[in-house]
Amino acid sequence: MKVYLDHGATTPVDKEVVKAMLPYFTKDFGNASSLHQFGQKAKEALENSREIIAKKLNAEPKEIVFTGSGSESDNLAIKGIAYANKDKGNHIITSKIEHPAILETCKALEKEGFGVTYLDVDEEGFISLEELKKSITNKTILVSIMHANNEIGTIEPIEEIGKICKEKKVYFHTDAVQSFTKVPIDVKKMNVDLISLSSHKIHGPKGVGALFIKNGTKIQKIIYGGHHENDKRAGTENIPGIVGFAKAAELANEEYISHMTKLRDALIKELEKIPNSQLNGPRGNKRLCNNANLSFHFIEGESALLRLDMKGIAVSTGSACSSQSLTPSHVLTAIGLKPEIAHGSLRFTLGRENTEKEIDYVLKVLPKVVEELREISPLTKR
Amino acid sequence: MKVYLDHGATTPVDKEVVKAMLPYFTKDFGNASSLHQFGQKAKEALENSREIIAKKLNAEPKEIVFTGSGSESDNLAIKGIAYANKDKGNHIITSKIEHPAILETCKALEKEGFGVTYLDVDEEGFISLEELKKSITNKTILVSIMHANNEIGTIEPIEEIGKICKEKKVYFHTDAVQSFTKVPIDVKKMNVDLISLSSHKIHGPKGVGALFIKNGTKIQKIIYGGHHENDKRAGTENIPGIVGFAKAAELANEEYISHMTKLRDALIKELEKIPNSQLNGPRGNKRLCNNANLSFHFIEGESALLRLDMKGIAVSTGSACSSQSLTPSHVLTAIGLKPEIAHGSLRFTLGRENTEKEIDYVLKVLPKVVEELREISPLTKR
Repeated sequence: MKVYLDHGATTPVDKEVVKAMLPYFTKDFGNASSLHQFGQKAKEALENSREIIAKKLNAEPKEIVFTGSGSESDNLAIKGIAYANKDKGNHIITSKIEHPAILETCKALEKEGFGVTYLDVDEEGFISLEELKKSITNKTILVSIMHANNEIGTIEPIEEIGKICKEKKVYFHTDAVQSFTKVPIDVKKMNVDLISLSSHKIHGPKGVGALFIKNGTKIQKIIYGGHHENDKRAGTENIPGIVGFAKAAELANEEYISHMTKLRDALIKELEKIPNSQLNGPRGNKRLCNNANLSFHFIEGESALLRLDMKGIAVSTGSACSSQSLTPSHVLTAIGLKPEIAHGSLRFTLGRENTEKEIDYVLKVLPKVVEELREISPLTKR
Repeated sequence: MKVYLDHGATTPVDKEVVKAMLPYFTKDFGNASSLHQFGQKAKEALENSREIIAKKLNAEPKEIVFTGSGSESDNLAIKGIAYANKDKGNHIITSKIEHPAILETCKALEKEGFGVTYLDVDEEGFISLEELKKSITNKTILVSIMHANNEIGTIEPIEEIGKICKEKKVYFHTDAVQSFTKVPIDVKKMNVDLISLSSHKIHGPKGVGALFIKNGTKIQKIIYGGHHENDKRAGTENIPGIVGFAKAAELANEEYISHMTKLRDALIKELEKIPNSQLNGPRGNKRLCNNANLSFHFIEGESALLRLDMKGIAVSTGSACSSQSLTPSHVLTAIGLKPEIAHGSLRFTLGRENTEKEIDYVLKVLPKVVEELREISPLTKR
């Protein structure tokens, strides 16, 4: 049995998505900037895809810029706003639990003279709205707080954050790479100026992302060249990829969310029964529908991952982006976990194609794996 | 009859390439950073592709960084070297006929205090090696000269430029987006430190590029986040795209080059017979094997393009990236064409799948189109 529970890292591309992409590889393969029929067909597919993504966010098509990844979208949002608005101020506010694409970009900006406030989060991963308000100064140009955390599934209070930013007249960016199609997004209700999206987290192809940029937002491009994408991102548009991304967004629906929520709750309920285990992140509808993250004391997450892998079960210890690193997760550290507890954590991220039977299998295998590892662990104090 | 003669803008993806990509969408869909089997399979495909691309350049696999486009590669090369080496100097040398991804990036750097020398070219589009030597100062950190020009097909003397840069201890970057697989590239012979490549110009998928970065080159990343791609470009690797790019590079061969050269020469020979026409760019093996660019006096290139399009023939006026612009091509201007001559230019870029029959069709249609347009043109002085 193969059970893939690492949809936070990436997802299989939906067969319908592949089908939608195929004609644009070999038949309607034109460059969307070309004036002839081949180009115009590509342009049509591009603009149609833009409309689909825009609609999902209650945005205007021209507010969508396609990029090469969620990371690129994050970089464009942070650096783009910072550079274009440095005459107004040099202060950025973000949180300690953002994706590396935000944190590393902010660190790079600090070296260039920008000041960055990294907000603390509580034990469930939520930022404090009071802290946010207090942190905004007359030098603040941007607040970037993720919609849903990629490791522990915390859904931040985006609407409230948006309200504060609007009042204080500060740009608000949210990284919605993990939440897109799983938590409703409405740019008008949420008062958000920029939103990062990624295709391969929603059963679309890799190599495609998007950035929603509200009309009138002052932003500088990070990839220069041709005047593609409303002059905000140079480079020939990846038509098959973009068509696939849009198709994936179209296919996502409420039913999938209920299905994943049900599996998630069953998984969490049973895994919490393992002695000396703990759930990381919040419960219920403040948690991403497909995320379960638990620490199993006295074991090493990576050892558990490898043993599960031998049984055909794919999970992760933290985010895939930092999976090669030996330092404990910055997210688990930020919610107050001690390094030895953080190291014993596993992330399970469900997908629409997972079944109850698969979860039953995981629940049969995992407790044994934890027990075996505890038996050989020098940390076990039972 | 449909005749696609705009391979400089983009190419149809080879069916073999699509076939190679398909398993990585739905079956072996893992994130190359994941530690489990799904991730390891993706990682294997990634590293295998890297080896294939490296071999094509006589480079080491770890010297290849995959990006999201040729434009991104150009931006990474120029900005990456500029920012990482600004302690050594702030001067960059390039030419007047580079792709916008180079020129616009250089312009952006000028606003940040870098000095850029834009070398002139002669009437065939070649830079002067003497001018280059004279332009290098002790502040110069980078020379960026394209391998083959995208509009007029001029193949620059890369080996000689490389020798000069090596002597003067200045980094040398070349944009080989148009030449890759059409002109042999050997990074060791050519003394080049950075090379930009793009997949969709060689019958691979859009949304994939690469940058060769010679071992030991001091470069700063432009997309921050995870430690992907030897810590030089953050973002989940686009495995199907990268596999497709490598497959496309593998499929390219000498036979295709001879085939395109033959068609190119037939096309040029016959089109030059049209009265008041002129070839732009050099002849023979100093010209890209698939490029023909001619000016037809007293007509507007765009009108010709549209009439040809109605007959099923796809060509371009300049590069696709600037096709929407009304200013005459910066390349044609740089080789000394007057605006009215530049405006009457058409670019024909051949592909391996073009046939003699297709060229015959074009040679039947085009002279009539030129004649018709001249009949209604206010510029005609015949």
